[in-house]
Amino acid sequence: MRATKRTPEQSRNVKITRHYTDYAEGSVLIEVGNTKVLCNASVTSSVPRFLRGQGKGWVTAEYGLLPRATHSRNQREAARGQQSGRTLEIQRLIARSLRAAVNLKALGDHTITIDCDVIQADGGTRCASITGACIALVDALRWMVAQGKLKKSPLKQMIAAVSVGIYKGTPVCDLDYAEDAKAETDMNIVMTETGGMIEIQGTAEVGTFSHEQLLAMLSLANNSIKNLIIEQKKALSAE
Amino acid sequence: MRATKRTPEQSRNVKITRHYTDYAEGSVLIEVGNTKVLCNASVTSSVPRFLRGQGKGWVTAEYGLLPRATHSRNQREAARGQQSGRTLEIQRLIARSLRAAVNLKALGDHTITIDCDVIQADGGTRCASITGACIALVDALRWMVAQGKLKKSPLKQMIAAVSVGIYKGTPVCDLDYAEDAKAETDMNIVMTETGGMIEIQGTAEVGTFSHEQLLAMLSLANNSIKNLIIEQKKALSAE
Amino acid sequence: MRATKRTPEQSRNVKITRHYTDYAEGSVLIEVGNTKVLCNASVTSSVPRFLRGQGKGWVTAEYGLLPRATHSRNQREAARGQQSGRTLEIQRLIARSLRAAVNLKALGDHTITIDCDVIQADGGTRCASITGACIALVDALRWMVAQGKLKKSPLKQMIAAVSVGIYKGTPVCDLDYAEDAKAETDMNIVMTETGGMIEIQGTAEVGTFSHEQLLAMLSLANNSIKNLIIEQKKALSAE
Amino acid sequence: MRATKRTPEQSRNVKITRHYTDYAEGSVLIEVGNTKVLCNASVTSSVPRFLRGQGKGWVTAEYGLLPRATHSRNQREAARGQQSGRTLEIQRLIARSLRAAVNLKALGDHTITIDCDVIQADGGTRCASITGACIALVDALRWMVAQGKLKKSPLKQMIAAVSVGIYKGTPVCDLDYAEDAKAETDMNIVMTETGGMIEIQGTAEVGTFSHEQLLAMLSLANNSIKNLIIEQKKALSAE
Amino acid sequence: MRATKRTPEQSRNVKITRHYTDYAEGSVLIEVGNTKVLCNASVTSSVPRFLRGQGKGWVTAEYGLLPRATHSRNQREAARGQQSGRTLEIQRLIARSLRAAVNLKALGDHTITIDCDVIQADGGTRCASITGACIALVDALRWMVAQGKLKKSPLKQMIAAVSVGIYKGTPVCDLDYAEDAKAETDMNIVMTETGGMIEIQGTAEVGTFSHEQLLAMLSLANNSIKNLIIEQKKALSAE
Amino acid sequence: MRATKRTPEQSRNVKITRHYTDYAEGSVLIEVGNTKVLCNASVTSSVPRFLRGQGKGWVTAEYGLLPRATHSRNQREAARGQQSGRTLEIQRLIARSLRAAVNLKALGDHTITIDCDVIQADGGTRCASITGACIALVDALRWMVAQGKLKKSPLKQMIAAVSVGIYKGTPVCDLDYAEDAKAETDMNIVMTETGGMIEIQGTAEVGTFSHEQLLAMLSLANNSIKNLIIEQKKALSAE
Repeated sequence: MRATKRTPEQSRNVKITRHYTDYAEGSVLIEVGNTKVLCNASVTSSVPRFLRGQGKGWVTAEYGLLPRATHSRNQREAARGQQSGRTLEIQRLIARSLRAAVNLKALGDHTITIDCDVIQADGGTRCASITGACIALVDALRWMVAQGKLKKSPLKQMIAAVSVGIYKGTPVCDLDYAEDAKAETDMNIVMTETGGMIEIQGTAEVGTFSHEQLLAMLSLANNSIKNLIIEQKKALSAE
Repeated sequence: MRATKRTPEQSRNVKITRHYTDYAEGSVLIEVGNTKVLCNASVTSSVPRFLRGQGKGWVTAEYGLLPRATHSRNQREAARGQQSGRTLEIQRLIARSLRAAVNLKALGDHTITIDCDVIQADGGTRCASITGACIALVDALRWMVAQGKLKKSPLKQMIAAVSVGIYKGTPVCDLDYAEDAKAETDMNIVMTETGGMIEIQGTAEVGTFSHEQLLAMLSLANNSIKNLIIEQKKALSAE
Repeated sequence: MRATKRTPEQSRNVKITRHYTDYAEGSVLIEVGNTKVLCNASVTSSVPRFLRGQGKGWVTAEYGLLPRATHSRNQREAARGQQSGRTLEIQRLIARSLRAAVNLKALGDHTITIDCDVIQADGGTRCASITGACIALVDALRWMVAQGKLKKSPLKQMIAAVSVGIYKGTPVCDLDYAEDAKAETDMNIVMTETGGMIEIQGTAEVGTFSHEQLLAMLSLANNSIKNLIIEQKKALSAE
Repeated sequence: MRATKRTPEQSRNVKITRHYTDYAEGSVLIEVGNTKVLCNASVTSSVPRFLRGQGKGWVTAEYGLLPRATHSRNQREAARGQQSGRTLEIQRLIARSLRAAVNLKALGDHTITIDCDVIQADGGTRCASITGACIALVDALRWMVAQGKLKKSPLKQMIAAVSVGIYKGTPVCDLDYAEDAKAETDMNIVMTETGGMIEIQGTAEVGTFSHEQLLAMLSLANNSIKNLIIEQKKALSAE
Repeated sequence: MRATKRTPEQSRNVKITRHYTDYAEGSVLIEVGNTKVLCNASVTSSVPRFLRGQGKGWVTAEYGLLPRATHSRNQREAARGQQSGRTLEIQRLIARSLRAAVNLKALGDHTITIDCDVIQADGGTRCASITGACIALVDALRWMVAQGKLKKSPLKQMIAAVSVGIYKGTPVCDLDYAEDAKAETDMNIVMTETGGMIEIQGTAEVGTFSHEQLLAMLSLANNSIKNLIIEQKKALSAE
Repeated sequence: MRATKRTPEQSRNVKITRHYTDYAEGSVLIEVGNTKVLCNASVTSSVPRFLRGQGKGWVTAEYGLLPRATHSRNQREAARGQQSGRTLEIQRLIARSLRAAVNLKALGDHTITIDCDVIQADGGTRCASITGACIALVDALRWMVAQGKLKKSPLKQMIAAVSVGIYKGTPVCDLDYAEDAKAETDMNIVMTETGGMIEIQGTAEVGTFSHEQLLAMLSLANNSIKNLIIEQKKALSAE
């Protein structure tokens, strides 16, 4: 049924490259099928104004799509002078999700900014960004410990994300662009390794989706995210 | 448990005033507890560039918060020169939801723009906007039929929205601002009168939420939205 | 002569609703005929940078038109990313006028911001804004006294505003939109209760206006503003 | 009483240089005392969108202050990315005033844009702009006739402008910057050669101004503008 | 003398990867030492407004630096709402240089846009962009020929660029970031394979540079660019 | 060969008027042929954030073109809300060049901003700006000494600039607009009085330029700049 011969519950292959660039405190290239996102974590020793004096750190994120990451070229947001609503929505989602992975109190007066820049987009870029960014975040936290900026890592748990949907009437996992463009329902789910839910964002693109379909999609996501977190840990144990 | 003595499953009172202003083709003031949103529907006889020549209409939405709709004053977005990410995210949600209520093919070469301006914000403004905007949309469609612009209304179904959440460990329905600010999980749900799901957006603000909590919240939303649609229909049958 | 059967010197009915919203320190809905403006006064305990260290307070104003306040929809200024020249000009006028009502030295290190948001526009919105904003300002000053932020109200005098014009060759008072659109001359006048002039802004839209016509318009404005101030005081004495 | 030894009714010397730059269809440097404004009129053979197909022309204006036209440097508006409210207000005034000088129907499908750029600012820059721009406008209209674009000049009348005010309790004419900064009332008046009024904009900076003071200021303006128009005509008759 | 043990005339190693991404008509990752730039060429079948109807094509370029391409994080230009002066200057240089490589008349009604996005910046990013972009451009032109959009490639010549400078008093070739930050003179040179000069941009950062130093730098550039063009051709002959 | 009968090596006449406006600490109108630029230097007693605490001063520049400085009107950059890439590039060049003329350490905690506003543009505006700005800079430094802000002038050397190019195959000096628009190569050179080079920016507009042509252009520039510096010194010795 799926153009790529995958079964409905089958996710795409994931490839994780740590230390992809030299300067960032955490730098991860994540490839999910043909989707490729570079996730760079930067540490600064200050916090945004609204947090000053509270002894809490902050984790934030920015998202961008290289103009030709997609099939046809998109206008460069810097040239347009504005990030689109879609971009703002995605980077808010990434940042919220990552904050769920960290004990901000234990982070102290530091901010970690994760830049997720999409080199190639074949569907699921926001989920790939979250999954990759979590690894870059861990590397940045490890760097902080190694530098003596923190006594121990304030990581609470790994998180990962996957998109699920209803495609030709069937719940499917990890949609590529061609599937996503035709899906009746599109849903992004962020979870922890123990199955706790962080974010769920689902939209009926055609008609509505039923309670049963929602449950089926949740189940697909649950399995896929478990596997993604295994991949994350495998990558993080190397070196 | 709730500051306002409501039971967990109890929604706030809803008051709907149609024809609130004189010029818009649909104009509804919706009050959900202390939250007040003015929803004005405007009809124009053209479609956005990306739809031209396809014989399809369009429904879009914009959202704004009067600067002093909230407890302390927010900077005016027009003065700041930019809509915030939160605003863009909300108006994208409202517009997507409303498009699910209409047969765009049957709308022909028309655009309906729904402005949701929050006069007073006590939590749940995006859900109140959707619920009120759907009524303004119906009035605009009726006006189009009365004007001979359409033979019959392209309305597919009524939709409404409610926020649910986990507050002090308990799933609760229709959070006010004080509850929302402290909720562990916050979720907005848009559904049709027959229980079809249009949108689900849930975020864990503290920790995570479990599958069981998700089911409990969905159940609360389902009941509340059924009641909201009864209120919508009551309002629309008057006159 | 006038479409609405008013005599040339006849102003429209005024309706003033105080405490229209719950959160602002002063909140007034003013209705002048079909023109409806919500005026919310917000108090903050700081002053703009250019006044720091001078022991003087500040009063400022912002003005906005809801997109469908008018017969056809206007683009939302926040979406456009810029306030129009007209908007900036109006809010500068409102703010200057209100500062004439207050002893800024006696206001101390506080800023009062008055948001005038037009719900429905049928001509004379800037004048209705000034007249309504002055009441919201008084309520905010009373609140400051009640809160112990000020010993006594620094109000110097009430001010109000009306538009006058030359319509079909005759000086008329308080033009509605239909008249304003066709008027040969359009003039906005802000005065105190004792007839002191604060602002006069007159424009010949067609041809020129004569000294005699100017005097006739001033006389109409003088009477109308006296009545407006009686209405303001009536509203302020209730509670 | 006046720092510059002028009597209250005395205006500053005016110097008008036509053909100040080589490329503009009308180019006038006007000097009013130490205030110097370059007024360049540009003719284009099209009209703004809102006028298309109406067989009417348009006259518009833009205003700018060179950053060091003033005693201390102002931020460059182009660098700031926005024209200030003051700039927009002034250029709207200049444009409205100039349109009163021209029969737009007779102008045909042409737009005349007048750029008023202040080289040095010693008070009264908006009035000097209007007075100078009217001459540049006449030169542009003459050029259009010479080029065969128009059969005869659509000029209806000359217009000129002056600022008047209340300074140390006395009505005075043509305030320089030092006077303007301390004036109790500040008023800009635009009139025709026959005494018809085009614009009046008066503001009480301190206290209020009385009806008698208004009449005195109008009288000063009336005389001053008559003289300005004599100067304009003298300049235009040269060559 | 050089931190990296290179001789003054020694350039860094160059690595060229064609078809780096899947969607662009030309896609090249160029690595010059630690500097890495992704150059994507996009073809569209239209030309900018100013060229319409002239039967000429256009080549343009955009440049961006990923926020953490550098040692410390730069603010994202899309978030800042503006491209910096440096960015605009660089992309103007890249585009001008590339247009020198193509016969625009023979390109017909097509635009080729080359996006140069810097993944990692260790000095010389604008020169690496030009050298890499020229290869992406050739691939895009080959694609156009293969697609039948052009009969033959309108390439006139290969171009490449290198930075040279005066570092510790000595003319050196292909500065890395550490050298560039301390160089007394910094110069970027774009040349053709036959030694024709396209662009020269040199700046004395400390003191001045002499005629003799200029000649020495030109000579270094000449040799380096010859080698770069050999590398370009080697890469293009593969496949 | 040249339309204006000049020989290839002949520069245009230069006219320098110091103290052109009254308020700036240095104010120079420079006329190079028909090109006229007003250069105003403003002194402030602070430095930009990135220099604070380093005991170094700063020299910066801004550039603008009056809308009708050119043959046809350009859109006003302040109205457009953005400076063009060309403007940013030019003002960066002017500022870099001027900083080469001053010992920034000896300037202390002061910033000198030089505004170069083009009144009339007939080619070579960036070079005329640099040549004129250097004189305004000297006047501002003299003013600082006279005011006791500096013990002695931190001027290191005079600098001046000229454009050279290849026009109809021949190297020519100081191109006017008509020549510049058709030149095959366009080059701007900034030098000191002793022949030290500060900036060289050359672009092949058609084809390429050769090493020999570069040398010929450099020689023309060298002579022309020597003469410009004689003119600068003559102007500065007056008074």
